[in-house]
Amino acid sequence: MPSAVVLLADGTEEMEFTITFDTLVRAGVKCCSAYVPPQTDVNPPAYATGSRGIRIMYDEVFDAARFSPNSYDALIIPGGAKGAETMSNNAGVQDLVREFLAQGKIVGMICAGSLTALTSKLPRQPLTSHPSVKTQLANDYDYSDESVVISDKLVTSRGPGTAFPFALTLVELLCGAEKRDEVRAPMVFPSGTPF
Amino acid sequence: MPSAVVLLADGTEEMEFTITFDTLVRAGVKCCSAYVPPQTDVNPPAYATGSRGIRIMYDEVFDAARFSPNSYDALIIPGGAKGAETMSNNAGVQDLVREFLAQGKIVGMICAGSLTALTSKLPRQPLTSHPSVKTQLANDYDYSDESVVISDKLVTSRGPGTAFPFALTLVELLCGAEKRDEVRAPMVFPSGTPF
Repeated sequence: MPSAVVLLADGTEEMEFTITFDTLVRAGVKCCSAYVPPQTDVNPPAYATGSRGIRIMYDEVFDAARFSPNSYDALIIPGGAKGAETMSNNAGVQDLVREFLAQGKIVGMICAGSLTALTSKLPRQPLTSHPSVKTQLANDYDYSDESVVISDKLVTSRGPGTAFPFALTLVELLCGAEKRDEVRAPMVFPSGTPF
Repeated sequence: MPSAVVLLADGTEEMEFTITFDTLVRAGVKCCSAYVPPQTDVNPPAYATGSRGIRIMYDEVFDAARFSPNSYDALIIPGGAKGAETMSNNAGVQDLVREFLAQGKIVGMICAGSLTALTSKLPRQPLTSHPSVKTQLANDYDYSDESVVISDKLVTSRGPGTAFPFALTLVELLCGAEKRDEVRAPMVFPSGTPF
């Protein structure tokens, strides 16, 4: 059974977190949510407060040693400006992004979460993000306006409106195209949906 | 500022809850999540456990007197088989559905949440639901396979894949078409998205 750690922080876009986590669980991926505190010396509460006020209880507090690519197949970084700022500036998260990719494991970033590519000093490659942070990324990467961009094991996406194709792409990479179709069907997307 | 109460129970489909709540908050709708306990005599925990294991802290415990249509402009009932069973069988929820509609306030039901139309004994009218509960509704209602069905003030929808058009329709009804466009744009839906 593939496994994924999905990061969560105060200010995380709760739709991006929830759509990705839930869709991966539907595919049979063992998911763990890991809370990245705003400062390392803070005693964290039992939940993260999302960008629109939804309070989500996390499974574990983030710890780079515990969530290594030896234990998980994918590392997911959702957006939400404030949450992505916390995650992208966390040295442990930056280390883990490089370690996952170095070991050929999947890293997913969506919305402002894509800023973590820059702070982790990933080399120039194709990626996308929320349009609001495009100028921070366009000089250092081959910036794309596609909804989902796959660059070897780095999967990036744009915002809540692309969270379903982002999550289904992760399902396909972790579990295969058949599983993607199996998970997608009972979600009942409108006819004509382009993913 | 319009206001909405969004129900939450153990087994609620967390994407349907989160997409609706978050999108309404983006539109400036004052939202309150209300937990419907599985039995009225249970001491509820501080959170609901969603259908795919995400634990969401609620704002209030459901109480039909507190969430009357005198205080709120919309009542939203998400799906998830187990959560919808709890909500649709709750006599207070059934009363409130009838009171909201009688006062010309909006009632939204998505996925298995649409079963609440039947348990609340709403008269025959157009509606939709998740395909898995279609047979329970098709005899008593003018069942539709459209993604979102508006029947006067009753708005119904199908599943996680239709939760965005469902939420944006609620925004339009509560806040107008301009606000719908304003909320939709920064979500960055893929080009060709049919809503």
